[in-house]
Amino acid sequence: MRPRFDQDRSEAGVMDKSTTDTTTKGERTRASILATAVHLASTEGLEALTIGRLAEKTGMSKGGLFAHFGSKEDLQLATVEHAREIFIREVIQPSMEKPEGLHRLMATCMAWLSYVERSVFHGGCFFAACSAEFDGRPGKVRDRIAEIMKVWLERLTQMSREAKASGELSTQVEPRQLAFELNAIAMACNWEYGLFADRAAFKRARVAMEKLLAARLPKS
Amino acid sequence: MRPRFDQDRSEAGVMDKSTTDTTTKGERTRASILATAVHLASTEGLEALTIGRLAEKTGMSKGGLFAHFGSKEDLQLATVEHAREIFIREVIQPSMEKPEGLHRLMATCMAWLSYVERSVFHGGCFFAACSAEFDGRPGKVRDRIAEIMKVWLERLTQMSREAKASGELSTQVEPRQLAFELNAIAMACNWEYGLFADRAAFKRARVAMEKLLAARLPKS
Repeated sequence: MRPRFDQDRSEAGVMDKSTTDTTTKGERTRASILATAVHLASTEGLEALTIGRLAEKTGMSKGGLFAHFGSKEDLQLATVEHAREIFIREVIQPSMEKPEGLHRLMATCMAWLSYVERSVFHGGCFFAACSAEFDGRPGKVRDRIAEIMKVWLERLTQMSREAKASGELSTQVEPRQLAFELNAIAMACNWEYGLFADRAAFKRARVAMEKLLAARLPKS
Repeated sequence: MRPRFDQDRSEAGVMDKSTTDTTTKGERTRASILATAVHLASTEGLEALTIGRLAEKTGMSKGGLFAHFGSKEDLQLATVEHAREIFIREVIQPSMEKPEGLHRLMATCMAWLSYVERSVFHGGCFFAACSAEFDGRPGKVRDRIAEIMKVWLERLTQMSREAKASGELSTQVEPRQLAFELNAIAMACNWEYGLFADRAAFKRARVAMEKLLAARLPKS
């Protein structure tokens, strides 16, 4: 099992960002439900995210939950969007502050590992869990998850392309191939840590990413 | 969605191996149920593997299924063991015929990619799907899956160690690190193919594995 060392902190963080003065009580309740839903889905799966299970976890009535989410699919889709916002805030935004090219690419990879290590979602990466769960379940939820994962891989590809264009990576680098390899390391880290609760996975992932990029620097 | 080009072949294959003259009718029925269960679990998940869902898929009565598997957990555990047998037959055994060392390591990796490409399980790698699903669900099923995955990683580590000992890989190679990296590529291939149904994932995985190993050959 993953240690949940920052459970309170991360939940508080989610709430802080969602409760500004301009939100209504309904919006705050919805955000609070989704803050529970993303952790539950990352641990038990999006399919286990029933109105009943969520009522149990939030202490709200099923009727109250139905008022916010008409169907299980609506709830799943809203949970995916909420998880996406958290992912952008935790992984994408901090690395966009770095200069374009190799620095930004490295920062994105390291932010991803940190997001898993800090248990931003209690069950590990929300998207790793839900994409593995939904790849064989046709429908809107699967399509939306696949779309978000495609954007993620395109982002890694684009950053690799920029690092190559600026001469920071070798002209031999194939950006989409590098995106595949970096994503593979990140996903495997999340998988090993989730299964064996061994923090050595993070060290292995960092070593693998550094070696991978070091081997793709321009020949001097 | 993954193309199911060899659905009939692989199901027939599973049945052929399980129905020898010495098996009883009960054993044959059990094997036939499990042959359906492994595909269902690889696509929809082990948690979706209820006696009801399996009755629907096999055309058997719920009562008949209960006679073979007393509980959902027993059914899940039996399905994991059946999937393990198929994995050993499809990935481990063919590569054990290769000479110890780098050849065996490469053969294992290529057999793994081939096993996913041939849709031996209709939903992709059974263990990739079920380990991602169960990492946050404590219990016997999770423990058994984690144990099988540990043996898999130890096998990759041991083969890397042998290739290093025989001088086929550099003395700088850290076998457990290499196992992490090879497994990462394999898992990512299964993930990309499952999500985008794009066979380019196999090419990317083969290129990644070959480059990874080529960079770890002894300096001549």
